[in-house]
Amino acid sequence: MGIEMKYHVLTLFPEMIEQGLNTSIIGRAIEKEIIELNTVDIRDYSVNKHKKVDDYPYGGGAGMVMQAEPVYRAYQSIAGTTQKDKKPRVVFLTPQGRVFNQSIAKELAAEEELIFLCGHYEGIDERVLEMIVTDNLSIGDYVLTGGELAAMVVIDAVSRLVPGVLNNDVSAEIESFHDNLLEYPQYTRPEEFEGRKVPEVLLSGHHQKIEQWRRMQSIQRTATRRPDLIKDASLTEKEKKELGLN
Amino acid sequence: MGIEMKYHVLTLFPEMIEQGLNTSIIGRAIEKEIIELNTVDIRDYSVNKHKKVDDYPYGGGAGMVMQAEPVYRAYQSIAGTTQKDKKPRVVFLTPQGRVFNQSIAKELAAEEELIFLCGHYEGIDERVLEMIVTDNLSIGDYVLTGGELAAMVVIDAVSRLVPGVLNNDVSAEIESFHDNLLEYPQYTRPEEFEGRKVPEVLLSGHHQKIEQWRRMQSIQRTATRRPDLIKDASLTEKEKKELGLN
Repeated sequence: MGIEMKYHVLTLFPEMIEQGLNTSIIGRAIEKEIIELNTVDIRDYSVNKHKKVDDYPYGGGAGMVMQAEPVYRAYQSIAGTTQKDKKPRVVFLTPQGRVFNQSIAKELAAEEELIFLCGHYEGIDERVLEMIVTDNLSIGDYVLTGGELAAMVVIDAVSRLVPGVLNNDVSAEIESFHDNLLEYPQYTRPEEFEGRKVPEVLLSGHHQKIEQWRRMQSIQRTATRRPDLIKDASLTEKEKKELGLN
Repeated sequence: MGIEMKYHVLTLFPEMIEQGLNTSIIGRAIEKEIIELNTVDIRDYSVNKHKKVDDYPYGGGAGMVMQAEPVYRAYQSIAGTTQKDKKPRVVFLTPQGRVFNQSIAKELAAEEELIFLCGHYEGIDERVLEMIVTDNLSIGDYVLTGGELAAMVVIDAVSRLVPGVLNNDVSAEIESFHDNLLEYPQYTRPEEFEGRKVPEVLLSGHHQKIEQWRRMQSIQRTATRRPDLIKDASLTEKEKKELGLN
């Protein structure tokens, strides 16, 4: 079917990206050439004979800062290979970015090509960020040792929305965050495990009752675990009453 | 200095966890035996001769559900090895969990041993989750193909807070989310890059002015990019005035 999405990752740890993404569903999509993954080692673009890519921060402070030039040259090495009319978006993974969510994942999945930039140490020289970055993204309000895992998370969330990556197109749709509700609990064989039984309604074969039960489970679970989401869910008056909302 | 933290990861993709965490800072901490990483392949605990671990969901629906028994047996294989008085916490990575953040990272970093459970397909049979899971955690409001990357993210964020993992103890402290402010921009050599100069104040050697400039940069950046955070930051009256708050 041809390549649907091409990722470039600018990183100091290309093997971490490659190995972390070469198993499971994403690895299979790379094998099937639905997705292409190209890692670029920023260290290869060092202008220093010791392959150094960082230096002390101006103005003082702890830690080291990644220099502008190796990052810029690594970026240019890709920019030269893209034959497209429009320049691909460059996503910098940083706690200072817009908080990544499922609608941003959908937005990115519509692109043909994406560049990810992973920082390390105390950050990257601001000037090169101003020059090349189009999107600052944060995967959450926590601090990581580098941008690599964050890039892998974004790549994984985006890739499963790329046509042909999931075997089952239904699965990408029927999922958490659908209608702002969390998923209902799932059960599979055996009917009894360590004295615990599958809820009877699920064995009834009565589709309408099953749907009702699952929906109430979703609603109750969302109300308990993520009350911040429930206010944006579209509930019927009856459902609101049962929840004690209203 | 001895092992400060031991992680067990129950997963269908142990090599993804091992390879994704064996580079960079976490890899070094494992090598130095500050951190121990033990992966357990759930498939090894299948009770099926074809090593199957999933089955159709009761009540119908798309996708497959991971069965309770292989997960429970994989968990028991670890439970038997821990000699501690208290059972280690079992973290299940799920979009339905509490949203992971830096204060949860600090809380988990205080433990000596943690178990992570990674789901795949459409989820795991609810009964085994009820039996073993102590913490449901979500790394953000997006859907991943499995729990592995989420576990790696939590392990990374927690590990950098474990004593001895970062070379520089200052770095773990002076970081994003300190005082609810994003970090200021960083610059390193050279003074001029592609026509762009380092802000003069950083070259002044005047520490007080540098601190003031950095703080204002942090405040302005937070106000622009993450207005949701700024309301919890402790700003002086003068700073609020400059920002046009108040």
